Amino acid sequence: MEKTWANHGVDLHLDLSRTRARAGLEAALRDAIRDGRLAAGTRLPPSRALAADLGVARNTVAEVYAQLVAEGWLGARTGSGTWVTGHAAPVTHSPAPAPAPRPLRYDLRPAAGDVSAFPRRPWLAAARKAWHAAPDRALDYPDPRGTPQLRAALAGYLARARGVTVTPDRVVTCCGFSHGLALLCRVLRERGAAVLAAEAYGHRAYWELARAQGLRVAPVPVDDAGLVPDRLDGAGAVLLTPAHQFPLGMTLAPARRRAVAAWAADGAGVLIEDDYDGEFRYDRQPVGAIQALAPERIVYAGTVSKSLAPGLRLGWVVLPGHLADDVVAAKAASGAAVSALDELALAELITSGGYDRQVRHARLAYRRRRDRLAATLARQAPQVALRGIAAGLHAVAELPPGLSEAAAVRRAAERGLALDGLSAYSAPGFARGPALVIGYGRPAEHGFTTALARLCATLAPPR
Amino acid sequence: MEKTWANHGVDLHLDLSRTRARAGLEAALRDAIRDGRLAAGTRLPPSRALAADLGVARNTVAEVYAQLVAEGWLGARTGSGTWVTGHAAPVTHSPAPAPAPRPLRYDLRPAAGDVSAFPRRPWLAAARKAWHAAPDRALDYPDPRGTPQLRAALAGYLARARGVTVTPDRVVTCCGFSHGLALLCRVLRERGAAVLAAEAYGHRAYWELARAQGLRVAPVPVDDAGLVPDRLDGAGAVLLTPAHQFPLGMTLAPARRRAVAAWAADGAGVLIEDDYDGEFRYDRQPVGAIQALAPERIVYAGTVSKSLAPGLRLGWVVLPGHLADDVVAAKAASGAAVSALDELALAELITSGGYDRQVRHARLAYRRRRDRLAATLARQAPQVALRGIAAGLHAVAELPPGLSEAAAVRRAAERGLALDGLSAYSAPGFARGPALVIGYGRPAEHGFTTALARLCATLAPPR
Repeated sequence: MEKTWANHGVDLHLDLSRTRARAGLEAALRDAIRDGRLAAGTRLPPSRALAADLGVARNTVAEVYAQLVAEGWLGARTGSGTWVTGHAAPVTHSPAPAPAPRPLRYDLRPAAGDVSAFPRRPWLAAARKAWHAAPDRALDYPDPRGTPQLRAALAGYLARARGVTVTPDRVVTCCGFSHGLALLCRVLRERGAAVLAAEAYGHRAYWELARAQGLRVAPVPVDDAGLVPDRLDGAGAVLLTPAHQFPLGMTLAPARRRAVAAWAADGAGVLIEDDYDGEFRYDRQPVGAIQALAPERIVYAGTVSKSLAPGLRLGWVVLPGHLADDVVAAKAASGAAVSALDELALAELITSGGYDRQVRHARLAYRRRRDRLAATLARQAPQVALRGIAAGLHAVAELPPGLSEAAAVRRAAERGLALDGLSAYSAPGFARGPALVIGYGRPAEHGFTTALARLCATLAPPR
Repeated sequence: MEKTWANHGVDLHLDLSRTRARAGLEAALRDAIRDGRLAAGTRLPPSRALAADLGVARNTVAEVYAQLVAEGWLGARTGSGTWVTGHAAPVTHSPAPAPAPRPLRYDLRPAAGDVSAFPRRPWLAAARKAWHAAPDRALDYPDPRGTPQLRAALAGYLARARGVTVTPDRVVTCCGFSHGLALLCRVLRERGAAVLAAEAYGHRAYWELARAQGLRVAPVPVDDAGLVPDRLDGAGAVLLTPAHQFPLGMTLAPARRRAVAAWAADGAGVLIEDDYDGEFRYDRQPVGAIQALAPERIVYAGTVSKSLAPGLRLGWVVLPGHLADDVVAAKAASGAAVSALDELALAELITSGGYDRQVRHARLAYRRRRDRLAATLARQAPQVALRGIAAGLHAVAELPPGLSEAAAVRRAAERGLALDGLSAYSAPGFARGPALVIGYGRPAEHGFTTALARLCATLAPPR
């Protein structure tokens, strides 16, 4: 039933049928003002009159008026009655965004790994155990470096699995590698660095992050032995992926490792080691972190984005002593920190051995995929050379003459397959290719065969 | 058993007793180099000789040498043998930090609420349900605004519980309110704002965040009706706590609400509404968000820090259309985002009604504490006036003549009770007091009685 207050000259069209009188009247009036049905300046009926008209207690109307006056929707003055104030503005709804292009069904771009392999059950079990065991204070505002439990677990793991020289007080957790990189760039910029040297092939998003912190990004050539270290003059910092260059895939050659470590040890600048997939090495023992060659000059950075899932937004940096306090201060100034609940769950997963199991499991699965990719391409697209496959979750496929990156990406899309060309990961002026960067870790297991078949169809020579 | 390689002139002191030969030799050599026991330039024995000496296969030693060459610890050249390279630097352990002062056992400072009341079981149940139901892609790199599930849940909740004018596309999640504030300050600074006006009483950490983004912070007087709105000239933005001024505790008076909303609606600047404890109102219906008075000029910001726990580092901003894209870009440039797992769990907790239950439960518990605080002080320290108690988790206790803040804080500490004086939350030149800001939400339930008793002992007039 719709009750109106028409006999006082204003039809309020207040629908009170389904709600309790007070809450209903309050919401109805607020909506009417917000929608503009009751314009600014409109005088409302006296509470006694409206109450009689609506069949509610006068006190109910008076309370509603008082509440809406308290909230600023209405104004009231003794002798002047109650009116709609002028500041309520209807929300402007954004135009409906254009529908996103339908995502391609199969995805071989080199971003995440296989998120369907995220160990939901072990993670939940670790979370349950950690949360029940955690003292209450673990849920309070966190230690600015990260929870002690996780920093201790990471220090042990990184020393053992990656040869990092580390104590827990040197570990600072961050909301993914990108957050850590932003913090480092901010600190280095404040210390007077102007240039971040970065491998000329890499993630453009990271270069953008550095620029947003005020650094200029200088691309450094990469040859078959990795980053060319005699081009670092003037850089305050170097960002590099020594274990498995992203995206080209080579391991930084031993002499180059020594050269960049010497560059850092000489105090010329800070080296940032992005060990994004260091756990995933297939051909021999893992190549240890370069950080251990000069731990007071090299920052080691890692993340669970490849080993667990990028959605966790959880990473860490291992810092030289001279940077630690400043990076912690920069983290505070960013306002962002990792959820203590996630940190406790990861600490439990690491100390219980579940993290190692997950890494071994994933390494085996990704290695099998790499072998299948190599064997399938060798058989069905032998004109395509595959590079950078000793490690990681991606490889570079060099395209045969006559097939451009753009054409390959387009042909793949027609088959429902998402691919990235190498040029999407190159600094301007560093053409190399044409080639594709194939993220073979990404499809769910059940979709990998089809993704491979579509890749071969894309690359097959025209008949 | 310790095996040595003494007969070649170098005593390596390699302890191989407990480990498999290859891994053990590799680790032992790495440690010896890292610790400086094998100095740079030291020539290692030929692999054949060391193998014979250690009683292992020559190939094992050759593999170890190759691995350490790959990692940069060793250099090797045909004809020149193998030597320790010069770049390995021992880590400088930080001096052991001075032991932190033992935390006081009882804590009435106004930071978090009672973290012991965090609903571990309901949270875990919501997490389990949400994670099992989530599609795999929810674990991939997240939507830059936050997961759609949480943004939709928040839009519904905030409209219903706080009267916010909101659609899901206007919600952006952040790693706590501080992250959101840092992003907003960055965007406003980039748009030319120079000054953030802030209530002269508040969290200094927020003022520091704004300064770190390049804004000057201008304190604005607060009187018994809240922020004085005629002092906003020249400010590009205003940060305020209209529902329950922090820390003074008054609600922004209706005329003031209209005035600041009009200031924002006129386009003079952006208003940032920090609704940090809006759910916790005891005296009457909640005062709705001021944001609804001018949703295209007011940013609404909230967090789970009071309703659940600060350790989650999870907050949100509801943005005017003209700010949304820039804030999302700033979030990307910060490199930080909330864990998708936490976002999914919170979305489930909200949509299942568990969040409302938790808020109701907490509101009741905090209201009881407030009543006990007021009754106990009235009885045992009647000379102390209590202000700002209509809402929230804290109150201001005005000290009687003759008791300074510093003396009260010191006397409390002697009794194992942590307290904060009002001056810790005041801008320079805005003396008001002496008073204490009492966070009665903080102690665990079982410790509240003792905390109250010690507070009374602290405030009792000297006999």
